[in-house]
Amino acid sequence: MSTDLAATLDLDALHDRIDTVLADVLRRSPAGIPPQEDRVRELTGALNDFVLAPGKRIRPLLCVLGWHAAGGGQEEECLWRMAASLEVFHAFALIHDDIIDNSPTRRRRSSAHRAFAARHRARPDADAFGVHAAILLGDLALVCSDALMNSAGLSKRQRQAALPLVDAMRGELLMGQHLDLLATGRPTGDVDEAMAIARLKTAKYTIERPLHLGAALAGADRELLALCSAYALPLGEAFQLRDDLLGVFGDPARTGKPVLDDLRSGKATVLMALALRRAAPEQRSTLDALVGRADLQEEDAVRIRRILERTGARDTAESMITERYERALAALDTDLLAPPIAAALRQIAARAVIRTA
Amino acid sequence: MSTDLAATLDLDALHDRIDTVLADVLRRSPAGIPPQEDRVRELTGALNDFVLAPGKRIRPLLCVLGWHAAGGGQEEECLWRMAASLEVFHAFALIHDDIIDNSPTRRRRSSAHRAFAARHRARPDADAFGVHAAILLGDLALVCSDALMNSAGLSKRQRQAALPLVDAMRGELLMGQHLDLLATGRPTGDVDEAMAIARLKTAKYTIERPLHLGAALAGADRELLALCSAYALPLGEAFQLRDDLLGVFGDPARTGKPVLDDLRSGKATVLMALALRRAAPEQRSTLDALVGRADLQEEDAVRIRRILERTGARDTAESMITERYERALAALDTDLLAPPIAAALRQIAARAVIRTA
Repeated sequence: MSTDLAATLDLDALHDRIDTVLADVLRRSPAGIPPQEDRVRELTGALNDFVLAPGKRIRPLLCVLGWHAAGGGQEEECLWRMAASLEVFHAFALIHDDIIDNSPTRRRRSSAHRAFAARHRARPDADAFGVHAAILLGDLALVCSDALMNSAGLSKRQRQAALPLVDAMRGELLMGQHLDLLATGRPTGDVDEAMAIARLKTAKYTIERPLHLGAALAGADRELLALCSAYALPLGEAFQLRDDLLGVFGDPARTGKPVLDDLRSGKATVLMALALRRAAPEQRSTLDALVGRADLQEEDAVRIRRILERTGARDTAESMITERYERALAALDTDLLAPPIAAALRQIAARAVIRTA
Repeated sequence: MSTDLAATLDLDALHDRIDTVLADVLRRSPAGIPPQEDRVRELTGALNDFVLAPGKRIRPLLCVLGWHAAGGGQEEECLWRMAASLEVFHAFALIHDDIIDNSPTRRRRSSAHRAFAARHRARPDADAFGVHAAILLGDLALVCSDALMNSAGLSKRQRQAALPLVDAMRGELLMGQHLDLLATGRPTGDVDEAMAIARLKTAKYTIERPLHLGAALAGADRELLALCSAYALPLGEAFQLRDDLLGVFGDPARTGKPVLDDLRSGKATVLMALALRRAAPEQRSTLDALVGRADLQEEDAVRIRRILERTGARDTAESMITERYERALAALDTDLLAPPIAAALRQIAARAVIRTA
């Protein structure tokens, strides 16, 4: 049994299975739109392309692991549909986020609004058209993730346990997006505020809620949900801190994301808040003058990176990651989890925190 | 019993009841966001203001009428929540639609993106900020309408009957929005295409699906659903044709909507398609040169209105409305409907078609 579970919990195999499920559910009609409807094939095709582009699938993976953490046994069809629904919902979040951040790329491809604009370059209003089509594409992804949940065939018990978590997750994400929108472009030394955004957008949305959702589908009790949180919240904060560091110090060839984006948009990250809080007056003026400039160049980034290092912000962020990573791992030292599931969660944690992309 | 039903079906009383329900559900937490969460009060406050601004409430009204058409009897709590969910979903659709159409106003107030921009005028990126905040506000409305459905307490039978209709309605709306986006700015003489958009965005989304939804919640059979369609689809087309006419010939003091908006954006309405199809070469050149110009002035509108009249497009649109209105009323001549419900549906039809706002 334990060996069976270890085989079931091979993360690469689960990842492939999730990709298969996603391709399968999207091949059928996404949200009431018949796939043979030629006139909107551009929209449905764009949704398929976006969702099926290679990705980490961390939310569906955690959902399946949550199921097994709660002793769900053989995975049921409804679990796969809910896991797929999380990934399609995430497509919604990314598509709208890329519009808001004015990001030109996503997963090494053009972002959705840029791709629409390029395909309709002949229109005089191509750029605005691209944004508008991408708003609708994000909406379609959200509606499609609902349709997947609505047709998942959940039992009454599962619905009562899972749907409030889904509603909470969505509200938390949007709350985080809104706070992020307010803070972006004008980062301050308010570390707590930056951490609050990281907690909502990443710790809860990316790690805790997907794990809770899978666990709830398998009938988890409060004790297990609390254990999931004890693992997920520090891990999620560490995951976001790693993202912040990669956004400034990362290798664009590996991250697939231009390394100047976060600095140009003036993302209010914990990393930047630490630097601003500790900066000497001259360093502070440099940061204020450069961070958030749309025309920021690599030589400006070099100056900012130097300040992030000299203020100790980079080192502090690294220690915060280590401390949180260890706290997440410590939460797994419990009899509540079968050893193979604890091992899989350790592997996920390592991937989330020790990475270059 | 029949007299009781007639009292129940007083449209103004129903409208007030819907407003009460909306205020009540929004006062509690919309989607997992606690109402006391100060930092996002701007977002949740904007959602409340938008949804609670005076409106026709036609979708919730039709949902309740569908319930009674199917003999649902005393309205259940779940019906009100589903009806409210339709109105909150509609807020989502309007908020994103106003961004896409670049509409400055909605219901005599600033549209959501303009209101956000005005409140954050001190930001150097106030206009972009307004659009981005409104994207999130629309998303929140959609997530909130889901949370209302998820917590409506539907029985298994109701869920199985209603949720596929909801999914279909949402897919149809987005399909209509996408076709509308593609066609706007470059209207053609393709009357069928313009009618296809009207059918998706209005006939199905605004009239048929809300009626179906209420009827399905009360256990309607296929025969009754078909009857609802026979009434709803022609009525919805007539409703949209009336909107098209008001968008060009309406009195802005009554419609609350600048009368040049449709012409400036180049809406691909059935009315415009009729004119373009019949226009003499010189009329055609005038329409091509003026319709869709962002800087179109009242004197241009006067020239366009004259062409809409001389080509007979305006008269044809009026006859199409009359023909469809009569077809909708004829569908109500059946023993399947109790007389008070048929009377209420007749009243709704008259309000939809014979109006100045």
